[in-house]
Amino acid sequence: MTNFLSLADVTDLDALIQSGRDAKANPFADQHLGKNKTIGLIFFNSSLRTRLSTQKAAQNLGMNVMIMNVGQDSWGLEMEEGVLMNGDKAEHVREAAAVIGRYCDMIGIRAFAELKDRDKDYKEQVMHQFARYANVPIVNLESATRHPLQSLADCITIEEAKANSSLIPARPKVVLTWLPHFKPLPQAVANSFCEWMNARAKSGNVDFVVTHPEGYELAPEFVGNARVMHNQDEAFDGADFIYGKNWSSYTHYGQVLTQDPSWAVTMDDIRRTNNGKFMHCLPVRRNLKVSDEVLDSPHSLVIEQAANREWSAQAVLKEILKSI
Amino acid sequence: MTNFLSLADVTDLDALIQSGRDAKANPFADQHLGKNKTIGLIFFNSSLRTRLSTQKAAQNLGMNVMIMNVGQDSWGLEMEEGVLMNGDKAEHVREAAAVIGRYCDMIGIRAFAELKDRDKDYKEQVMHQFARYANVPIVNLESATRHPLQSLADCITIEEAKANSSLIPARPKVVLTWLPHFKPLPQAVANSFCEWMNARAKSGNVDFVVTHPEGYELAPEFVGNARVMHNQDEAFDGADFIYGKNWSSYTHYGQVLTQDPSWAVTMDDIRRTNNGKFMHCLPVRRNLKVSDEVLDSPHSLVIEQAANREWSAQAVLKEILKSI
Amino acid sequence: MTNFLSLADVTDLDALIQSGRDAKANPFADQHLGKNKTIGLIFFNSSLRTRLSTQKAAQNLGMNVMIMNVGQDSWGLEMEEGVLMNGDKAEHVREAAAVIGRYCDMIGIRAFAELKDRDKDYKEQVMHQFARYANVPIVNLESATRHPLQSLADCITIEEAKANSSLIPARPKVVLTWLPHFKPLPQAVANSFCEWMNARAKSGNVDFVVTHPEGYELAPEFVGNARVMHNQDEAFDGADFIYGKNWSSYTHYGQVLTQDPSWAVTMDDIRRTNNGKFMHCLPVRRNLKVSDEVLDSPHSLVIEQAANREWSAQAVLKEILKSI
Repeated sequence: MTNFLSLADVTDLDALIQSGRDAKANPFADQHLGKNKTIGLIFFNSSLRTRLSTQKAAQNLGMNVMIMNVGQDSWGLEMEEGVLMNGDKAEHVREAAAVIGRYCDMIGIRAFAELKDRDKDYKEQVMHQFARYANVPIVNLESATRHPLQSLADCITIEEAKANSSLIPARPKVVLTWLPHFKPLPQAVANSFCEWMNARAKSGNVDFVVTHPEGYELAPEFVGNARVMHNQDEAFDGADFIYGKNWSSYTHYGQVLTQDPSWAVTMDDIRRTNNGKFMHCLPVRRNLKVSDEVLDSPHSLVIEQAANREWSAQAVLKEILKSI
Repeated sequence: MTNFLSLADVTDLDALIQSGRDAKANPFADQHLGKNKTIGLIFFNSSLRTRLSTQKAAQNLGMNVMIMNVGQDSWGLEMEEGVLMNGDKAEHVREAAAVIGRYCDMIGIRAFAELKDRDKDYKEQVMHQFARYANVPIVNLESATRHPLQSLADCITIEEAKANSSLIPARPKVVLTWLPHFKPLPQAVANSFCEWMNARAKSGNVDFVVTHPEGYELAPEFVGNARVMHNQDEAFDGADFIYGKNWSSYTHYGQVLTQDPSWAVTMDDIRRTNNGKFMHCLPVRRNLKVSDEVLDSPHSLVIEQAANREWSAQAVLKEILKSI
Repeated sequence: MTNFLSLADVTDLDALIQSGRDAKANPFADQHLGKNKTIGLIFFNSSLRTRLSTQKAAQNLGMNVMIMNVGQDSWGLEMEEGVLMNGDKAEHVREAAAVIGRYCDMIGIRAFAELKDRDKDYKEQVMHQFARYANVPIVNLESATRHPLQSLADCITIEEAKANSSLIPARPKVVLTWLPHFKPLPQAVANSFCEWMNARAKSGNVDFVVTHPEGYELAPEFVGNARVMHNQDEAFDGADFIYGKNWSSYTHYGQVLTQDPSWAVTMDDIRRTNNGKFMHCLPVRRNLKVSDEVLDSPHSLVIEQAANREWSAQAVLKEILKSI
């Protein structure tokens, strides 16, 4: 694996999921792989789970970690080509990426969507410019349109739940549901989850359904062949996993079209399911998106899912270490 | 030791002080204990000594360290239970603590008093919520009402000074004095010092006196049976150690009632003592709280005291490592 | 080497340059030297290359690294002696430096010029106060008037280019040229480059020329015996290396006297040279100071030069480790 920008960089998804589960069972088995190797973690945005879990995974593998908050530890970076740099960006990504690539054996980048210009966000400029100029592998720590380390952790969490419970069928029904929120959030986690679940559906591992209010359709390249339903109750019928997430509109880009509280997940929703598990990438605003009752019930997998971020990162970093 | 929130978590204070002094004499003797163990240091507030000394102590013990500034590296955390999270806090401590606890073998937390609502501060919500939800040991890096790593360093410093000088009696007179300041500061260091010195007084190791202007009475549960005097000069008579600290009023909560400069410590004050040593947890505003002359004299222990923060942290982390 | 504040701390420059090149060839050969040694990196200002390259160099040498952003992770530091500290600085450098010196085996400091008071900046108060009070070696990570780790990387880069190309003479012509910029920048990099190039000129390794518009004269103690020309075209004739940098006026201290775009370096300038190499310490504002065409051509050494920051830091840290 030379980059981990999206699912397209994964050659064997089953093996990668298994590698994550192996790391969880035996975290320090590959510590020799990372000796004298350094990962740089570059944050254009805030982070809790990604920052800590990726750092931890790297350390489990014996690597050194260097962390930089762009615009806080350093200055803003220009991403456009050919411009006269007389504004507020003091350095071009061509130099920054190339230089960081000389100090690091691989680079993780977090750069959220700005939600102002859809074409710009969906071009994934930051990720692609780093991949173009860094000359070392790039790991996506959540980009404008994707969060693949999260999706891999989600896959690990689902397989683990299946292994732990005979009540979950071999091909469980997984429902991604939109949740209400007052702030416009990126589509990255939802996009990525669709991308990975569509792959898992194709290989017969899940049955995948997406539900959201009208106007919240995700980009066609992500939603793919997933069944889309606008009636949340019907979508939840017989679900084995409910995956909650808010996102702002893709068609009316970056807008909040509704905050309809009936879309929040409560125990009434869980009762419609097949004793369903609840998943969310976190952070989650309690009682706005999901009720306390759900999050504090045995139905919730959110903590295990977050814990699995360490193992998804470790599986990816290990693949990259083996390739360099 | 499963948590280090306050003196109540210490079973053998003499042994803990000695463990710190042993670490100082031989910093790397226990490096095997921390192999593949990680401490997360979570800062809700600024830090210099605590940040560096705890990190250093962990590294001395062979541990990995992950540091996060809440609200800067990540977002604000909701501490209240059962609320509708539609404000500025994006994540609840229930999730944040549980998740960080999955990445870390122990967690250090710094969260100062807000000095707005006394009941809230004295409930120690942040520390208790982390202790409740993290499922790993919690280390207090200064909470709303206590700073026990400082108090342990203070005990080490006093015992060390006694060992280094035959002029200091076996049961020295230790005086905590309020110092003037224009900003309202928490009571945490003063509270903690009282708590620990009262324990040391009980075991016959010190004679403990507190002096401050009227209106600056500390909470009864901290001041305990310490002798309290409002005449600083009288309190200093024959003192072996003067421990200076400013705090805002507990009774008129969070208020600055006086800035009377006569409460600052000068060489005139030192001359009243028994060749007394001066201690302060730092940072200290020179010439506002203490004169240059005192701080730059051989009477000052403030640098040694700060240096001992490394060894107090190492003693505590070692105890916790042995228990996990 | 007990400090690395400026060229004056270097006893054998040829050996130090060679040590950097050796580190580049064999980065982990001296890993035993840094075992259980800690460097503290203290930033009063933003950093990208210095932060990452120094951290990486220290890790190559087996050291632990602790990083602190003053005023962000901690609070502001008072540098003046004898003052009543009733302003916005909560701690004096006397305490801060002494305490950090107790936790660290050496300390790196970045503290830029403020460009308000020339005498104050040129006194190098921050660097000297840390050197005075820390009691451990101090490494200059760019001070008000110097950036010696950059200058050492520059020397390494020039020697490396000479070794890699038979077209570069043994005593190449090196031209430092002022570049236009709309913001007032410190003189530190230009000063330091003069200081180090004058030494290299003296030992017969380079022929050194400085060119800038009138009014941009550097301080006499830095420009020394270098040839100064106000006609950039003439200065570039036959140059083997062009070193570009903007600085604000020293004589009209901190002012931007001109932004004349004809001083920017373009391919027309390169054509005047002896197939000259272009160097810049980065960050560089493209098309304001240097054209894309130059930076993206084989004439540019800027990425290699930045990469060499790792090896200049490693050479310096190794010297200091050997002395402690």
